[in-house]
Amino acid sequence: MKSTMDVKIDLIRSDLLKGKPIIVYDFDGREEEADMVFYAGTINWESINTLRTHAGGLICYVIGRNEAEKLGIDLMVDLLRENNKYSHLVKRPKYGDYPSFSLWVNSVNVKTGINDIDRATTIKELHNLLESEDPYDLFRQNFYSPGHVPILISRGLKERRGHTELVTSLAEFLGLKRSMVIAEMLDYGKSLSKEKAIEYANSNNYIFVEGKEILGLFE
Amino acid sequence: MKSTMDVKIDLIRSDLLKGKPIIVYDFDGREEEADMVFYAGTINWESINTLRTHAGGLICYVIGRNEAEKLGIDLMVDLLRENNKYSHLVKRPKYGDYPSFSLWVNSVNVKTGINDIDRATTIKELHNLLESEDPYDLFRQNFYSPGHVPILISRGLKERRGHTELVTSLAEFLGLKRSMVIAEMLDYGKSLSKEKAIEYANSNNYIFVEGKEILGLFE
Repeated sequence: MKSTMDVKIDLIRSDLLKGKPIIVYDFDGREEEADMVFYAGTINWESINTLRTHAGGLICYVIGRNEAEKLGIDLMVDLLRENNKYSHLVKRPKYGDYPSFSLWVNSVNVKTGINDIDRATTIKELHNLLESEDPYDLFRQNFYSPGHVPILISRGLKERRGHTELVTSLAEFLGLKRSMVIAEMLDYGKSLSKEKAIEYANSNNYIFVEGKEILGLFE
Repeated sequence: MKSTMDVKIDLIRSDLLKGKPIIVYDFDGREEEADMVFYAGTINWESINTLRTHAGGLICYVIGRNEAEKLGIDLMVDLLRENNKYSHLVKRPKYGDYPSFSLWVNSVNVKTGINDIDRATTIKELHNLLESEDPYDLFRQNFYSPGHVPILISRGLKERRGHTELVTSLAEFLGLKRSMVIAEMLDYGKSLSKEKAIEYANSNNYIFVEGKEILGLFE
């Protein structure tokens, strides 16, 4: 017989593959933020519009460390640390972990890069790049930086327990590519509370999952 | 007697100082985008909320070249060009000008950096920094990068005719600090058309101004 978590995992997988978002809350005592999460393989402009109008945070493309190596990109903190002018700006935010931002990019096929269609194009093409035979060169041919889509790189759950690591680990567990799209859910002034994020998920029939449940999958 | 443009300029100045936004459209044949623009000296979380929910694009902090020198920051394209791995990613977008992005930063006084209150804090503190006696060191003490607020640096209207240059030149003309906050106005899928941006401005009693009118001030 399947456990409750097994059933939930099956639902998460089928929702993500259908192009539905899930809501991922990190941890009490960490950021305490809920992110809206899509699988990048299903992204279209309507999902970018939902992220923009329902979630409201930065719309980020998230990959794992192996994928970043294929693209030939590092964390932004590494780039800044190498530079005397900028090295003093690399600090730990209040919640404790160094940021997972890498470069901000646009596809060369977009006009300005920011509208729903343009951001969907950039993200879809990044996702497709992971399946190509020569991601390093194709990335340099078909994208430019700086652009309007931040790429986040997971350091793995052993090193960091942010949304970046939670959603890439979840993707891997589900047998999907580590290629996700996330945005923080915001409220008036503040970040959306856990309680309101649960309410939002319930009323939209989206699955709400917590960091501790995702960690549990790997125990 | 005052010309129509003189009257409009007086209204723009008083609206910006009151904390009201203006709508700035660049040029037919360039990005063809309308940005919502606030003066950074008046920014609070309600204005960030308006930028996020009414405009919808990236909420950026914009300064001039002199201000960037005081902070000791360059354009991101300069940082990427210096790096073998990233230099091939520096390209001209379709509308022709290299991007004006510099670093993405947060104040050390924010929690996660993204919600309305956090972004208002980061921007207010950046604005106040310009008036301080030691902006270079204070910037490195009180901010970290990468964060959630992109800083854009104007190259001046002779080199580039983007929103970055238009709003910093306008600020200078008005006798304000070159310290502005902008976000692109978006529609479902697409960027908001010029016609709809004019309608939006009229129905909210915000001033709509075009790039060609701003260029006209300097002729």
